[in-house]
This record gives sequence, structure tokens and C-alpha cells, in this order.
Amino acid sequence: PSFTLSARCLSTKPPPPPAWDRFRYPPKSILIVNKLRTQPVILAIDAFLEHVHATYPGVRVFHEDRPDIPHGAEVWQRGSVSSLSSHPSCVNLLPGERAEKIDLVVTLGGDGTILHASSLFSVGAVPPVLSFSMGTLGFLLPFHIDDFAKALESVYTGKATILDRMRLACTFYNEDLSKKGDDGDAWQVMNEIALHRGSSPHLNTIDIYVDGQHLTEAVSDGLIVSTPTGSTAYSLSAGGPIVHPSLSALVLTPICPRSLSFRPLVFPSSSSITLRIGDRSRAPAGVSMDGRASRILNPGESVTVHASPYPVPCINRSSIAEEDLEVHEGAGPGKEDDWVRDINNLLQYNATFRSKALLRHSRT
Amino acid sequence: PSFTLSARCLSTKPPPPPAWDRFRYPPKSILIVNKLRTQPVILAIDAFLEHVHATYPGVRVFHEDRPDIPHGAEVWQRGSVSSLSSHPSCVNLLPGERAEKIDLVVTLGGDGTILHASSLFSVGAVPPVLSFSMGTLGFLLPFHIDDFAKALESVYTGKATILDRMRLACTFYNEDLSKKGDDGDAWQVMNEIALHRGSSPHLNTIDIYVDGQHLTEAVSDGLIVSTPTGSTAYSLSAGGPIVHPSLSALVLTPICPRSLSFRPLVFPSSSSITLRIGDRSRAPAGVSMDGRASRILNPGESVTVHASPYPVPCINRSSIAEEDLEVHEGAGPGKEDDWVRDINNLLQYNATFRSKALLRHSRT
Amino acid sequence: PSFTLSARCLSTKPPPPPAWDRFRYPPKSILIVNKLRTQPVILAIDAFLEHVHATYPGVRVFHEDRPDIPHGAEVWQRGSVSSLSSHPSCVNLLPGERAEKIDLVVTLGGDGTILHASSLFSVGAVPPVLSFSMGTLGFLLPFHIDDFAKALESVYTGKATILDRMRLACTFYNEDLSKKGDDGDAWQVMNEIALHRGSSPHLNTIDIYVDGQHLTEAVSDGLIVSTPTGSTAYSLSAGGPIVHPSLSALVLTPICPRSLSFRPLVFPSSSSITLRIGDRSRAPAGVSMDGRASRILNPGESVTVHASPYPVPCINRSSIAEEDLEVHEGAGPGKEDDWVRDINNLLQYNATFRSKALLRHSRT
Amino acid sequence: PSFTLSARCLSTKPPPPPAWDRFRYPPKSILIVNKLRTQPVILAIDAFLEHVHATYPGVRVFHEDRPDIPHGAEVWQRGSVSSLSSHPSCVNLLPGERAEKIDLVVTLGGDGTILHASSLFSVGAVPPVLSFSMGTLGFLLPFHIDDFAKALESVYTGKATILDRMRLACTFYNEDLSKKGDDGDAWQVMNEIALHRGSSPHLNTIDIYVDGQHLTEAVSDGLIVSTPTGSTAYSLSAGGPIVHPSLSALVLTPICPRSLSFRPLVFPSSSSITLRIGDRSRAPAGVSMDGRASRILNPGESVTVHASPYPVPCINRSSIAEEDLEVHEGAGPGKEDDWVRDINNLLQYNATFRSKALLRHSRT
Ligand SMILES: NC(=O)C1=CN([C@@H]2O[C@H](COP(=O)(O)OP(=O)(O)OC[C@H]3O[C@@H](n4cnc5c(N)ncnc54)[C@H](O)[C@@H]3O)[C@@H](O)[C@H]2O)C=CC1
Ligand SMILES: NC(=O)C1=CN([C@@H]2O[C@H](COP(=O)(O)OP(=O)(O)OC[C@H]3O[C@@H](n4cnc5c(N)ncnc54)[C@H](O)[C@@H]3O)[C@@H](O)[C@H]2O)C=CC1
Ligand SMILES: NC(=O)C1=CN([C@@H]2O[C@H](COP(=O)(O)OP(=O)(O)OC[C@H]3O[C@@H](n4cnc5c(N)ncnc54)[C@H](O)[C@@H]3O)[C@@H](O)[C@H]2O)C=CC1
Ligand SMILES: NC(=O)C1=CN([C@@H]2O[C@H](COP(=O)(O)OP(=O)(O)OC[C@H]3O[C@@H](n4cnc5c(N)ncnc54)[C@H](O)[C@@H]3O)[C@@H](O)[C@H]2O)C=CC1
Repeated sequence: PSFTLSARCLSTKPPPPPAWDRFRYPPKSILIVNKLRTQPVILAIDAFLEHVHATYPGVRVFHEDRPDIPHGAEVWQRGSVSSLSSHPSCVNLLPGERAEKIDLVVTLGGDGTILHASSLFSVGAVPPVLSFSMGTLGFLLPFHIDDFAKALESVYTGKATILDRMRLACTFYNEDLSKKGDDGDAWQVMNEIALHRGSSPHLNTIDIYVDGQHLTEAVSDGLIVSTPTGSTAYSLSAGGPIVHPSLSALVLTPICPRSLSFRPLVFPSSSSITLRIGDRSRAPAGVSMDGRASRILNPGESVTVHASPYPVPCINRSSIAEEDLEVHEGAGPGKEDDWVRDINNLLQYNATFRSKALLRHSRT
Repeated sequence: PSFTLSARCLSTKPPPPPAWDRFRYPPKSILIVNKLRTQPVILAIDAFLEHVHATYPGVRVFHEDRPDIPHGAEVWQRGSVSSLSSHPSCVNLLPGERAEKIDLVVTLGGDGTILHASSLFSVGAVPPVLSFSMGTLGFLLPFHIDDFAKALESVYTGKATILDRMRLACTFYNEDLSKKGDDGDAWQVMNEIALHRGSSPHLNTIDIYVDGQHLTEAVSDGLIVSTPTGSTAYSLSAGGPIVHPSLSALVLTPICPRSLSFRPLVFPSSSSITLRIGDRSRAPAGVSMDGRASRILNPGESVTVHASPYPVPCINRSSIAEEDLEVHEGAGPGKEDDWVRDINNLLQYNATFRSKALLRHSRT
Repeated sequence: PSFTLSARCLSTKPPPPPAWDRFRYPPKSILIVNKLRTQPVILAIDAFLEHVHATYPGVRVFHEDRPDIPHGAEVWQRGSVSSLSSHPSCVNLLPGERAEKIDLVVTLGGDGTILHASSLFSVGAVPPVLSFSMGTLGFLLPFHIDDFAKALESVYTGKATILDRMRLACTFYNEDLSKKGDDGDAWQVMNEIALHRGSSPHLNTIDIYVDGQHLTEAVSDGLIVSTPTGSTAYSLSAGGPIVHPSLSALVLTPICPRSLSFRPLVFPSSSSITLRIGDRSRAPAGVSMDGRASRILNPGESVTVHASPYPVPCINRSSIAEEDLEVHEGAGPGKEDDWVRDINNLLQYNATFRSKALLRHSRT
Repeated sequence: PSFTLSARCLSTKPPPPPAWDRFRYPPKSILIVNKLRTQPVILAIDAFLEHVHATYPGVRVFHEDRPDIPHGAEVWQRGSVSSLSSHPSCVNLLPGERAEKIDLVVTLGGDGTILHASSLFSVGAVPPVLSFSMGTLGFLLPFHIDDFAKALESVYTGKATILDRMRLACTFYNEDLSKKGDDGDAWQVMNEIALHRGSSPHLNTIDIYVDGQHLTEAVSDGLIVSTPTGSTAYSLSAGGPIVHPSLSALVLTPICPRSLSFRPLVFPSSSSITLRIGDRSRAPAGVSMDGRASRILNPGESVTVHASPYPVPCINRSSIAEEDLEVHEGAGPGKEDDWVRDINNLLQYNATFRSKALLRHSRT
């Protein structure tokens, strides 16, 4: 029944959801992103495809060009891969090519799947992203796969709400300050860019500049520049604060600094942070972007990080009305901020000591 | 010579400095704020008064109504003190009264003097603040008292730049959610509001709500809600991150929480945070606002904190051109962000271990 | 049946449990310590008394001199209270008086009840302590009250094992280095001695000396000197490490220090730590011993802390054989180190982020 | 003049310094250890050799077998290298071979030189170590090279005092719990053994066992088991406490754990800690011993760490009388504990915020 409603909505062109106005609406092309190809994922994709074709006729569904294209999906031609192909693990596309035909991204998997989806649009705008977990919770996973019909409906009826998750644009420089590689455009990360000594036995020395001004010289295992989204990822493990994702800010967190007095720093999103490997650094720094090793920076080389103009528009869990959601163990009322739920349920934030009768040696 | 220039500027009405447009310009009334009345402070105030009267004729200079009004200053009638007088340590004024006649606040003393100046305008807008140290550096102290003529000139020639330091508005509620006291308006703090068990031997239990949603129940010595400005004050000591003062954000930092998994949180300035003493809390919570004890919250009572519409407009050190500044030990180039200078010089941020020949057992 | 066995054991004089040789064995006098007097506690004490009188005839049972002496218990005459009576909250007894007649202490209640028991022997040796929880777990609570018969039997059959929990001896000095009060002997704490500014708005300044040598001047809310036992109490909340209670060490943990570079310190138990309120400290320091406010130290006054010769001999949970223990939710095998169980169950140590299917939005 | 005295002392056989009784006294053979071969080091070694030959005739001086044996030193035959030779970066010697002929080790260089000296005796006892800095201070460097004559004299006149710096013995196991390699004996580290994911993008999963009992499963970048000596090295950077080197203890510090509730743990030196790579760990763990990469542990493989019977006997700075020492910038009175001096001078421990006139904008 809701399907008919949805189909109707399609034809009557409901107003786009808030913040959707910068994208084509209603979505005519969907990109499915999955990393794993386990049986549950395959079955879920099949059900999803069937549902889309039946309910939203005319909507095309794409999939990354891999040997295992699901039946009913078209291969997504991402455009010719740019000169960055020297880093084969990094996908890329030339701006202006067919990338723009995607109106909605649907991910199935863990947090890493969304990070991967973000990387598919590493040099330009990202369409709205609808993320489904396969049963485990994650920070970036508002929906359970079983709710896909309702979630899609919220999109096509204009009820979906969007949280723009800030990304960071990273540009790499050679020692002579020329740009590294000829990719021209900056790379976007959703969690963080991390510099780390990796398997080098020695600490590295990194000069930190904020808006061109020298802040300090860090002797450490490495440094993290994180988004608020990434503040619950690697930065958290390194001791950083938890930053609400609706704040626009950059978080700088050191990794095992050789100083007693290093503290995480939070900058406005207007700041530009440059990390330059010290000339006498005893180790180079490996660069990880959203957890993927990308390149090595040698002494004198640097990376400049600032807020990207291209956030990841993530569709919120609260897009589905409370009454429509299955009851989830551990989940609170549907209206609540997903983030509050997540830091409590996933991070076990402030799990208080169980001094009060939580555990008992019971006779009964 | 510069005096003549300044006087001329006054008559020719230069355009107000950036961000000054919401205040009367050029300033016709100055409020001098000092906490201490030591000999150096007295002498400095005298010199300041003499300079103002000679250079900026027509400008009136006021002083808080204390027995020790400096010669040449008028008593500042702050308007009838509101019903908050039950808390004698807190100054207050009724909105609409004579407070608005102040166009510029000049403080002489430490960071605490600016906090005090902020509290003099605890329920409304604060005029631009020009802060002078008496020889020691402080986070909120851009100028040395010896530079007062140049600093004043930068104001009257329209060169002064302003950093709006966010404040927090705090409203207190009884157990039945009626407002505590009939002060009507909220109270503003520049650093933080801190709840603490004080000398009670027991931990208190505080429920934290963010935008009305329950976040967690904190069992701890207390909680701090801080501005970015306050992030280098009490919050820092309690383990909080350092937040750049040009970011608009709220920092929530626990004080000695009885949990392994409490981490500082950073919220957007649109957030509203409510701290409610748990019904079964074993201790009440004393409230400190910018370091001044203000009241006690008992179980069931609460305080709601959100960004105030009335920041403190602080005149930046960079208002004085580099070449005009005396060389200061430890201070970098004048163009630099005051904040970068301060976290390095004052906090000794990232003071690296001296493993490299900084200290030597020297024979010579 | 086991009762007969126990009674027999008493007459055949089994060898004392390990580490019991410095106490009279088998115990002829038991002191019951309880803070609360709730119905469950009253019933438990009655059952305990009945059991002791029936099973271990000749054993006398004592109770603190309070209005509510349980039927069947004698009042414990703790000897004339020494000159410390000026601090009425602190119980004390003159050495050599009737205190030594206690051979076994039995506590019923929470961790605080054991701290209280320790304080009853604040100036000398403590008899072995058998601690029962009333249903909630605590760090210092190896046994559930329902297991009291088995626990007692383990004592009288010589199977009980003892963990000597180190205490700290604290001596207070006036500004002229004369001892404060004429109590002569030092005071013992089991968790920690904490100095705190309490409700004073200002930070205090405390000079720290280790073995007479100046270590540093701390500007902070306060300082904690903790035992390994206390490392999971206040010191943990203030950021201290978790120290295994079988290690002999002193832990120095600052409370909200005004420095980026203060780190908890761990000293050998041979160290003597002196904390002296700085002459120009802006606040005095309230002293808490095991959570009880004891006195105020003013500028110039000091306290010296070192390992006490009188630990608290705590009877271990592993004293009861695995098969004899009721199965307890959350508790591991009986042989395991109580401490490992406790930091996992009570502190939720290393509660990993639930990224792996712990929570699920389930359809079923 | 003191040389004559020293020579006399040699003949009259003064009693050995405290704690020296387990070594041959007076030393008849000295091993010089240096890593760098810069001009100052070469000159210093030459002067040292000349001094020893002139002042302590009959004492032999050895040097590691490298192309650059200093003139006047003999090649140290370290015995046949054991089967560990498969790890060429690790030196080793068969017990019972010529290693025991060294009675005194003299190091010239930084902290790393002492770590290297320790590794030269990685499977057995270490002779007393006299460590000289070349001008920079270090944690393990009590003496300046210019003071070598006085330092040597303190040894030969029996005045030298020794701090036994605990080492950790590490034994590696295959998945089937057979010992890895056939080195038979355990390896000793002076600072720490660190397991780290290195350049693997994924976190590793490590099960921690204490005395055979499962403590927790750590998902992190890695884990450090450190000595008190090492508590100021890598462990400190990872957030660990500072532990006085005269305490016997093991410190377990996680590196960027994916948990909010991981805290450093301190164990008694009687504890045995096993770290086992989880069967489903997504990354292997590289092993670093005192900063040197040694091997990779794959899922199922493990290392067991416990206190070594072979500490490093380090000769203290206080061995030289106060009046005999050159005045060193930043150094306090000679009697003081080297460690207190070091954490203050080298770590800038508790460097207080400079709010009090330390920096001044001065006119003068
Ligand atoms: N020591 C650490 O904590 C490390 C963390 N990472 C993080 O892993 C991320 C890559 O994730 P995967 O590709 O899934 O790698 P992965 O499979 O190795 O998983 C890393 C974990 O981080 C979680 N995660 C990812 N993004 C998150 C976020 N924004 N908030 C909270 N949790 C988040 C994932 O759910 C997963 O549990 C990197 O961006 C980095 O932040 C990477 C290396 C070390
Ligand atoms: N344990 C701690 O760190 C505590 C800190 N405080 C702080 O003291 C403030 C009140 O300051 P005063 O009236 O001067 O009291 P005060 O004379 O007791 O000084 C507190 C110290 O904090 C410094 N300070 C104040 N505001 C600062 C800022 N925004 N950034 C960096 N440093 C700052 C001052 O220069 C002074 O050194 C409170 O707002 C609170 O933040 C108050 C109590 C305890
Ligand atoms: N912010 C904090 O964490 C504070 C902690 N405390 C601690 O409370 C202790 C007094 O305890 P109570 O009389 O029960 O007061 P209380 O009833 O206020 O409880 C304090 C909490 O600490 C727990 N606790 C006590 N000793 C412990 C230990 N050795 N290890 C782990 N948990 C322990 C208790 O079970 C209770 O949950 C003090 O010795 C102090 O260590 C006291 C004040 C503040
Ligand atoms: N992020 C970090 O802090 C890291 C620290 N390290 C440490 O470096 C050590 C190896 O030292 P080097 O061979 O000199 O390598 P290195 O030349 O890379 O220097 C490491 C630094 O640690 C200092 N150091 C070494 N042992 C110390 C101790 N016990 N206390 C205080 N400082 C100490 C050295 O003086 C030097 O400044 C390792 O045992 C490990 O503890 C190694 C890797 C990362």
C-alpha cells in the first residue's frame, strides 16, 4: 500500500526534503555500494533491487564496476580514472564525467562502507547517502536493512532529513611547495587524515601551521586531523574529544606525543592546517585517509587540510517516523538525536561503575 | 604627536572598526575596571585618566562605585540592582538603565579583571573591552599597560579589531521547573559555569540533557560547561580540549567522574544543555560562574545553559601595528594570532622533552 | 554438617591460615561492623550471631557501641578515646587498650563499611577482615552475605587466604613543623588521603616533597596520595592508573591541576611524601581521609604520608572453594584473582565499542 | 693527584660499593659502548683510554667488534652468536662464554646507547654501567663526559652507588605454544616491549592474560609492557603514569585503544603478562624491544613477559660528591634523587602556566 503512495508521490513531485535542493529530486538514479559480498548482503541487494524496480519505475540502479554486479543493476561508469591511478587503492574520477548522474547512494555494510562511498566521490560533491547496517550498529549507520522500504519512502515522499557531514580537503605538497601529483583537485576525507610513523622505529617530527602561522613542532608517532564525524573514530582512540557532527570544526589530535603537554585542539572550520614533515625528522610519515594508506610524506613534504566544500549528506534515522520503526534493542525513541543514541549505545559513554546492585551474587 | 592625530580622528569621525557597528562610535564614555588597588594600578589609572582627558577631550571616564574612585573618574551608576541582591557577591543591573552609556571598557589587572568586567554586564550587551596587563601575561590580556596610548589610538582611529568572545547564558530552575529567583533574565558567563560537590564528602549525581534529550547521568565531583574562551581555564585542568575562541561551541567537561569512559564533549553553539541534580544525589552542587560561587543547586533543581546573544567584544592585540609594539620577551610577530602565541607561551603547549642539548652539564 | 566439622576444627586447633600467624588463632572474638541498619542488615546480623553461637561456642561477638547493639552481641569497649576527640568524627583508641581483643572483623555493607572498619583501627594493627556485601558488588567485597557460613568455615579450618591491603600513615604538622594535635601516632588510611580546595573559589598551591626533596609546586584543586587499593577509588576518577593491590606503592594523583604536564606518579612504598600548603596559597586545603573530611590545612601546614606498618588483612574470595560458591552472575571461576574480576565487572574495564553485533535492530 | 689515590685504592682493595658484591671488584675489564662515532665521541674515547691506562694499570678496555675499534682497546669477543642469528639486528651471546669477563660497562652517547649496552647482555647478567652524556641530558645519563675521571674514581674507591634498573624477560610462543626460535633463553628489555600494528591499516586484537588469567581483549594500535625505567619512554607518550625506577613493577599501557575505558595498569614484578594476538585479529603485531623492531607476531602467536632476574646495575649520579661536580645548568644539589631532577628538567614535569610574571612585556 505504501508503495502505491510512493509511486504516486513520484508522479506528483513532492517538494524535496530540506537541504536536498542542491541535488536532483526525486532521485532518478541510485548507486548501491557494498564492500562485502556475503550471502545476507547479496540477498538484501536483490530484495532492494526488486523493490525499487516495482515501486519506483524509471529509477535506474547502478553498482560499482566489479565482477559481481547484482542482477538488475547497471555498471556505474565512473569516468576515466585520473592520474592518481598510480595509487591503485584510491578510486577517483574526473570532474564533469558521469559521476553526476547519481542522485542517491545506498550503502549496505559497516561504517567502512560509507567511508568507501565517500571515497568514490573524493573530488567533488556527494549525492545524499542512505546507509543500511546488516545487523550490527555503527556510528554512521542509521537504518537497519530490514527497514529499507520505509527509508526509501521517506526519501521519495520528501520526509527525509539530512545531516551534512563535513569532509576535509587535503592537498599534498612537495618539498618545493609544488603540488604532489597532478591530480589538481584536493582529496576529501570523511573521518580523518592521519600521519603515522608506521613501522619506522623512530618518532617523526612534524611542524604544525595554523592559517600559515607556526603552532608547534610535534615529536610523536603521528598526528590526526579529524572531522567531527571522525572524532569518534581514530581521534577518540588517541585521546581526542567527542565533537557533535553538526558542528563545523577541525580536531587536531596527536598520537603518542613525546611531550607531557600536548592536548587535542579544536579549530573553526575556516582554519587551514598544514602538517610538514620536519627536515630533520628521523622518520617519514605514512598518510592514511579514512583508514586507507595513501602515500608517504618525506622530510620537507607537507599536506594542507581545510574544510571541504563537499560534505557527505547523510539521511538521518529520524527520517522514519517513530511508529514506523521496528523496536530495536538498545535504541531510544525515534525522535532523538541519532548521535546521543550512538555515543551511549556504541561507545558505552560514561558507563558508570556498577556499584549499585547491577551485579549480584544471588542465591535465588 | 600621535595624540593630535587621535584628537583629529575624533573630530573627523573615522569609520568604526570592524564589528564595532553595533556600538556607539567613537566611544564617548569609558569604564575603567580594576580589582586590585595596588600602587602600580593606581599610578597607571592616573596616567590613563590624564591621557584621556588631554587627548580625547569630551570623553567621560567612569569607575565602579567603590570608596576608591580615582581622581578624574565619575561614579558609574549601574542602575538599581535587581532582585538578585540576595546573592550579594553578584553584581547586576536592570536592563534599560544607565549601563548603556558605557562605550568602551578598559580593564587593568589579570584575567580575573576581565571576567569581572563581563559580570558587570551580566544580563545584556557588553561594550568593547580593552584589556591591559600590569606586567604579567594572561590569556585574555592582549596589551601591556605601558602601551595604553597606542591601544587607545587604535580604537579612535578605527584600526582596532575585535574578537567576539562567546558567553553562555545560564538560567536556573526549581524542582518544579519554575525559574529560580525572579531575575527574569539569564546570567552570562565568559569562561564557564561549574557545578561541584564543594566540601561535601559525597559525589553528586547530575543528569545531563542536550536539547531536551537525556544524554547521561554523571556521578562525579562535578561538571563544567565552558565556552571556547574558558577551554583554557578550569575545563583544561579537568582534562578538556583546547578550543579556538573564534569557534562557537559549548564544551562539556566532567570533573573527576566515577567512570572510566567519560570524555569531554563539544557541542555546536545552537545546543542547549541542562544539568539537573539527580533526585537521589548524595550531595547538592555548588555553582561557580567564572570562578565565583553563586548558589547551591539541590536535588531536582537544574540549570540550562546555551550560547548567549551577548558576547564580550575583546579588542585584539593585533590592533596595534607590529612596529608600534615594544618588543616583548617570548612574544612572536605582532600579526600572529594572539591565541597561538598564548597557548605556546602561557600554557607551554607541547613543551617537548629536552633531549636535545637544551640543558648541558657544561664545563665552560 | 559442616558446622560439626567446624566445631571440631576449633578444638583440634588447625594451623592458622597463611599470613594469620601475627594474629590470635583461631579467632575467639569477632567484631561486627555495619554502617546501615536496614532490615536486611539486621536480619543478616541476627542469622550470623545465631550461627556463630551455635557453631563456634565460646567465640564472643562484639559490636560498636551504638544504640542499636544487636541481640547476642556485646558492646565493644574501644578504650578511652585519645586526645583526638577534638575531631569528633574520627574514632580512635589508645594503643594497648582493649582493642587487641578482636581477632576477626566481619563487615556487612558496601566498600565504605570496610573503610569504616579500617578507621576503627586507625592507629594500630587491624585484625583479619571478612567482608560481606548485602547484594551489591564492591571492590572490597569478596563475599555475599548468603555465603557467610562457608566463609567463616574457611577461617576456622585454616583455609582462608589473606591479602594484606597496604595502608598509609599520615602525620600532620603545624607551620613550625610541630605535630598537629597530640595524638602522637599517625593516622591510617586504606584508600587515600585527599587534599582539596573544597568550596573555596581559588586554587591552592601545594609543595610536594619526596623523601625530603622538593618535587614540584602544584597549583590545582587538590592532590591525592593513594594506596593501590585506593587506585580504583578517587584517584581513578582524577585520572590515575589502576594499581594491583598486591603491589606496595604510593600513587600521587593531582586533581584538576593548572598545568598541561602533570602526570600521575607511582612511588615505592619506602617513599615518604610531604604535602605542604604553599605560604602564598590562595586557598587552604580540606583533608579527606578515605572520604571523610578530617581537618583543614592552612598555608604553611603540612602532612607527611608513608606506608603504614599496619595493613588491612583482607580475607580473599578464593578462600571458599569453587564448588562451594553459589554461581554469581558476572563472576568468573573462583580461583581467579578477585581483582581481575572486579576491574572487568565493576569498572567495565576496556568495555569495547559495540561494533560487532552486540546490539542489533532485530526484526524477530 | 686523585689518580695516585685511585691507583692506591686499587692495590689496597677497597670494599666494593654497595650492591657490587655480585660482580668482580675492582673491575679489571671495561667495555666501552658507543653508537655514534662523531669527532667528540672519538676524542672522548681516546682521552678515556689514556686515562684508564695511566691511572688503573692492568685494567683492560674492550670495544664491540666494529671496524672502528679505538686505539688502545681490544676487540670484545662476545662468544659465538646463538641461533637467534636469524634476527641479524639482535646481538646475542651464549651464556657461559666470554661475556663474563666484562666488569664494567662505560657508555658514551644518549639513552639509546645504554639500551644498546643492555641488549649486548640480552640473555644474562649485565655488569655495572657507567653512562656518560656527550653534552645533552637524558633520563639514563647521570654523568657528563667531562667528569669521567671523577666518576671512574668513585667506582675504584668504592663510593659508587648503584640503582638496579629492572628488566623484562620476554619469551615468544608459536600458535601451538611451542617456543618461537630455539634461543632457549628469554630476551631482556630495559624500557619496554611494544606490540604495534605498524603500517597495517587495521587495528589488531590482542588478548591479555595476567598470571594465566584472561584480563581483557584489547582492540587497539598496540600494547606496551614497560619497566619503571621505560615509564618515561614510550609508555609516557601513550598516556602511562610515571613510575619511580626503584619500584619493581610492570606497567601495561595501551596504544590508541578502541575503547573509552582502557586505563594503564601497574602490576607487581611477580606478575607474568601474556599478550596473544587474537585468532581473528585483522592485523599482525610488530614487536619492538627497546625501540628496535625484532619480529612479527601473527594471530595465535604470543609473548610472555615477566621481571628478569638480570637488572641493569646503573651507577648513580650521586656517586660523585656534590663539591666534585661541575655546576650544571638546571641541576639541583648533588644529593638529590637523579629521578626527581630528571622529571623536572627533562620532562618539564608540571610546568605551571606562566601566569605569574614569568613573561613580561617589559619596557626596560
Ligand atoms: N586505533 C584506532 O582506533 C584506529 C582507528 N582507525 C579508524 O578506522 C577508520 C576506518 O574504518 P574501517 O574502514 O571500518 O576500518 P576497520 O574495519 O579497521 O574499523 C575501524 C572501526 O572504526 C569504526 N568507525 C569507523 N568510522 C567511525 C566513526 N566515524 N565513528 C565511530 N566509529 C567509526 C568502525 O565501525 C570499526 O569498528 C579510519 O577512518 C580510522 O578512523 C584506523 C586505524 C586505527
Ligand atoms: N582547577 C582549576 O583549574 C580551577 C580553575 N578556575 C578558573 O579560574 C577562573 C577565574 O579566574 P580568576 O578570577 O582569575 O581566579 P584565580 O585568581 O583563582 O585564577 C585562576 C587562573 O586561571 C587563569 N584564567 C582565567 N581565565 C582564563 C582563561 N580563559 N584562559 C586561561 N587562563 C585563565 C587566571 O589567569 C589564573 O591564573 C574560573 O573561571 C575558572 O576557569 C577556578 C577554579 C579551579
Ligand atoms: N570523584 C570521586 O570519584 C570521589 C571518590 N571518593 C571516594 O569515595 C571513598 C569513600 O567511599 P564511601 O565511604 O563508600 O563513599 P561513597 O558512598 O561516597 O562512595 C564512593 C564510591 O566509591 C566506591 N569505592 C570506595 N572505595 C573503593 C575502592 N577502593 N575501589 C573502588 N571503588 C571504591 C564505593 O563503592 C562507592 O561507589 C573515598 O575513599 C574516595 O576514594 C570520594 C569523593 C569523590
Ligand atoms: N611515541 C613515542 O614516544 C615512541 C618512543 N619510543 C621510545 O624510544 C626508545 C628507544 O630510544 P632510542 O633508541 O634513543 O630511540 P630514539 O632515538 O628514537 O629516541 C627516543 C627518545 O626517547 C628517549 N628515551 C629513551 N629511553 C628513555 C627513558 N627510559 N626515559 C625517558 N626517555 C627515554 C630518548 O632520549 C629519545 O629522546 C624506545 O625504548 C621507546 O621507549 C619509540 C617509539 C615511539
